[in-house]
Amino acid sequence: MSILRQDPTTKDWVIIATDRGKRPDDFQKTATEFALLPHDPLCPFCPGQENLTPPEILRYPHDSLLDWGVRVVPNKYAAVGLKGELYRKETDHFFREMGGVGHHEVIIETPQHDQSLSRMTTNEVEMVLAAYHDRYCALRQDPQVKSIVLFKNHGERAGTSLIHPHSQIVGTPVAPLLVRKKYEVAISHFDDTGRCLYRDLVDEERLAKVRVLFESPSFVVFHPFASRVPFETWIAPKNEEATFGHVTPRHLAELADVLRRTLKAFDDALGNPDFNYILHSAPPEDDTKHYFLWHIQILPRVSTIAGFELGSGIFINTILPEDAALYLKEYL
Amino acid sequence: MSILRQDPTTKDWVIIATDRGKRPDDFQKTATEFALLPHDPLCPFCPGQENLTPPEILRYPHDSLLDWGVRVVPNKYAAVGLKGELYRKETDHFFREMGGVGHHEVIIETPQHDQSLSRMTTNEVEMVLAAYHDRYCALRQDPQVKSIVLFKNHGERAGTSLIHPHSQIVGTPVAPLLVRKKYEVAISHFDDTGRCLYRDLVDEERLAKVRVLFESPSFVVFHPFASRVPFETWIAPKNEEATFGHVTPRHLAELADVLRRTLKAFDDALGNPDFNYILHSAPPEDDTKHYFLWHIQILPRVSTIAGFELGSGIFINTILPEDAALYLKEYL
Repeated sequence: MSILRQDPTTKDWVIIATDRGKRPDDFQKTATEFALLPHDPLCPFCPGQENLTPPEILRYPHDSLLDWGVRVVPNKYAAVGLKGELYRKETDHFFREMGGVGHHEVIIETPQHDQSLSRMTTNEVEMVLAAYHDRYCALRQDPQVKSIVLFKNHGERAGTSLIHPHSQIVGTPVAPLLVRKKYEVAISHFDDTGRCLYRDLVDEERLAKVRVLFESPSFVVFHPFASRVPFETWIAPKNEEATFGHVTPRHLAELADVLRRTLKAFDDALGNPDFNYILHSAPPEDDTKHYFLWHIQILPRVSTIAGFELGSGIFINTILPEDAALYLKEYL
Repeated sequence: MSILRQDPTTKDWVIIATDRGKRPDDFQKTATEFALLPHDPLCPFCPGQENLTPPEILRYPHDSLLDWGVRVVPNKYAAVGLKGELYRKETDHFFREMGGVGHHEVIIETPQHDQSLSRMTTNEVEMVLAAYHDRYCALRQDPQVKSIVLFKNHGERAGTSLIHPHSQIVGTPVAPLLVRKKYEVAISHFDDTGRCLYRDLVDEERLAKVRVLFESPSFVVFHPFASRVPFETWIAPKNEEATFGHVTPRHLAELADVLRRTLKAFDDALGNPDFNYILHSAPPEDDTKHYFLWHIQILPRVSTIAGFELGSGIFINTILPEDAALYLKEYL
């Protein structure tokens, strides 16, 4: 029989149905050989074609005029944009609409077209994370921004449209319900217990051990108890940082190594799977409180979000996270 | 600039970003020619191979011994199952787990392997809907069932694993958060106004006209104001039926024609797109109240659910539903 597990951070349930008898290595795909070149003359993210993107917001190293390691540019096809003022209207006194004011930026992670975070050096990944941090801090200064979504789409099934490695950061003028729900649950736990829900969750995962992939001095990497998809992985700090905005340079360097190692294990164990990751953090206006803990959620796209998930919000996961961890650990 | 629109039924926002300049016919794909045969000797849903499925729950016509039009069988790989008793436990006093008790059935829509609802006769589609209704009513009798999710996955991008046309019905032992949220919003609207939110929504869509695809005597078919994906389509009754369980045989016959016409227009306008549909209905224990209206949501899978959607729950739709409606209406 299948089991249902509750995600302590959303209170929603996940169905873990292992009846199909899928083994962890069933999710391994043969890595697609794209025969990518290190430079694509048509790619707007490749060096020499910087004029194909909107004007640059940031580049690392700061003082480089020609060579760059990381660039941040506005998304040419922005979901929300800087133009226009914040308005709200009720159409026909029933429907509510507002202007898509906000920020939508692209972090170009490397000048090299065929590169990936899993194959970059720790120093190179650190530069990407420093750009995340820089832009995260900039966006949370904008009082119009109610929520910051920092994410990466890797591969076609994860929704990427350009192969050149990049991440995205979006500052939205509304707080998404899912995000609001996570805060509500965390605040309720804090009110009940005086403790941080995520701190408790990380402690419980470390105690249970069976889903922990590895630890570094300041981070824990684990498959969560109520994993929504096979090999869902969280990276969480061991200290009490509510917001990614407060992360220190020393921690960024350590995180770079942890993230690179994790993605390298994915590549080796699953054959360069498509994945999304999302960096969750305390709300910009409330980030000194101790009810939240920033963390990264990695969701491999080795299964399909189908009608049941869309209709109920409940995910069906065909592999027990304990079994997934046992398998993935061999590649670490 | 993009616009944000609030879904009145969930209070969540959708971003409509048309900057990419996508036109409705950009979503048209060349229909894949699978060269399917009407009978596949390896398919567990094809006639003659009935022994490959678990024992039958229902068949239409009832009195047929050999030939059948529709069969309902337990899902061999059930997300939730009949076995076992309902238990809940708290693992390590923190994590909550329960047994996956419930129902998971497959409605085999036709004996013909290469058939589709859009190409079936209205009478044949009516038989499928009658099976939906029959099993919906059966599942809502079970006091352990807190929510019924009736859905169809059509095509690989929609998560189908078997090509032979089929739908699924799942009775879960918990109420999913998304479903609970929809009820809460509807009840709050009812408390505020004394009216059914969905009734108001359908009235407003009919008044606005621009997103209505067509009407039949008892049904309205429209792209909702806050469409999450290109060509999202709702089919809603004009009367006050809270639950699909109360639908009459006359209405089922009419719905069969409406559903078939809608899917036919999808085929013609978009080239047999992958899609999910979900039948939403009032909660089993509360279905005589007038705050809800059952309805069908069709979600074409012509775009990808990516990191932003997974991280925020907010969908980015690249086409205005008014424009989608203008285009799709030409095929009706």
